[in-house]
Amino acid sequence: MDIKSRKTAPVGVFDSGVGGLTVAREIMRQLPNENIVYFGDTARVPYGSKSRNNIIRFSRQIVHFLQTKDVKAIVIACNTASALALDTIQEEIDIPIMGVIVPGARAAVRETRNGIIGVAGTEATIRSETYTKVIRSLRPDAKVIGQPCPLFVPLVEEGFAKHPITEEVIDIYLSSMKATDIDTMILGCTHYPLLRSRIIAYFGEKVHIVNPAYETAMDLKKVLEEQGILNDAGQPARYDFYVSDTAEKFTEFANSILPYDVAATRQINIEEY
Amino acid sequence: MDIKSRKTAPVGVFDSGVGGLTVAREIMRQLPNENIVYFGDTARVPYGSKSRNNIIRFSRQIVHFLQTKDVKAIVIACNTASALALDTIQEEIDIPIMGVIVPGARAAVRETRNGIIGVAGTEATIRSETYTKVIRSLRPDAKVIGQPCPLFVPLVEEGFAKHPITEEVIDIYLSSMKATDIDTMILGCTHYPLLRSRIIAYFGEKVHIVNPAYETAMDLKKVLEEQGILNDAGQPARYDFYVSDTAEKFTEFANSILPYDVAATRQINIEEY
Repeated sequence: MDIKSRKTAPVGVFDSGVGGLTVAREIMRQLPNENIVYFGDTARVPYGSKSRNNIIRFSRQIVHFLQTKDVKAIVIACNTASALALDTIQEEIDIPIMGVIVPGARAAVRETRNGIIGVAGTEATIRSETYTKVIRSLRPDAKVIGQPCPLFVPLVEEGFAKHPITEEVIDIYLSSMKATDIDTMILGCTHYPLLRSRIIAYFGEKVHIVNPAYETAMDLKKVLEEQGILNDAGQPARYDFYVSDTAEKFTEFANSILPYDVAATRQINIEEY
Repeated sequence: MDIKSRKTAPVGVFDSGVGGLTVAREIMRQLPNENIVYFGDTARVPYGSKSRNNIIRFSRQIVHFLQTKDVKAIVIACNTASALALDTIQEEIDIPIMGVIVPGARAAVRETRNGIIGVAGTEATIRSETYTKVIRSLRPDAKVIGQPCPLFVPLVEEGFAKHPITEEVIDIYLSSMKATDIDTMILGCTHYPLLRSRIIAYFGEKVHIVNPAYETAMDLKKVLEEQGILNDAGQPARYDFYVSDTAEKFTEFANSILPYDVAATRQINIEEY
């Protein structure tokens, strides 16, 4: 592909389902010229309770699918897939690919004063200790306290984000973290920013809350600039949405968090890629 | 296969994940001679929020897998797959296959006095209205009140079955059903029997709670008898467990609900079937 085509080529963004739309939203805000092909693996969601092997296999199929759309770069907008599959997939393709963990970890290290950082995430993300490893590589004396919060995703997906029940579940999962001296906390799952205001209220002002989505979009910009493939065409960006299970719920959710109306999503059989 | 081999051949039992073990448990109790091959689709669980097309496709792959194990009959131990895929799959194979909906509906019709029956289930099960159709075919004047309870499965799977939070969620989902005149209520998802005592306590004595697992095992016995393939070999039954995602969590869960220790489960790539 020549450099001009590479500039206008879309960025591929994928997630296990709808959560990655919080990352797509940041990319749309910060990089309004970029075309995006989004894939949500709604047929196999959630990833957070599944094994490394399957998460790598699923991610590989999705990357193959995105490559059929001639994407110029890929963002893994899913903490679980970033934690477990990024390293492997990175070695298999020759376009830039990035996850949400390194940007999130870097922001946390930048923000923390005492070096004590909390990470809330899925079981698979926390068990992988990827956040801990990346944070320690940036600040070797950092102390990282991880906490799986498996009910957060279903609570958000089932419309309980603003329900009092969710406050109780936040307390169940995060009270022991709150009792420590953390001064920074990473929302280590793309659904969690949808609970952001409640988590901020829970921890109070002494804890800085990091949303990796914001940092990831900034990192993507840097990567595209370095490669000279930032889209400067100035045309209205085009957003295409694909899912592996029917679009209804996806479209509803997308419309609740994206700043414009998502009219159409297409379903594909991801197992064929 | 000759009749003797058919008698000793295993029964295939499948579910989207672990919930179907409540059905397997009933088969083990009522039909202690039967060998069982259980498959839990832990890589793609849950089914309850997914579409008919995918649920049929997943079920078809699983049936193909079970046929490689020479099963003599298949039990779909998942309400969602029973509601959406049984009719289609039934036409594609030549061994007996049954779901949990017909047995559950029949038991409810037998138990109800006033003909007002509640059904709690996944979104997909309730939306399909399969329970309503089957109940009405047995008792045309019956009134069926369906209620999706999407948080019940994650609550059970994440170990909250006995937590006060679950009581609140039961009230959120079932209060409007409780306010009606139902005298019978079907636990229309294989996870829900694990909340049975709390649901009984919530509704009180005036509502009879139906667990389709129990009825399904009775139906299976009848089908095997009618076909002359009930296993009368008198040898200790053999139970084999397969999953599409790693066994750890499955084994834990299995050991918490089965009356013996599940030592080994095997992982397969179900997408290949």
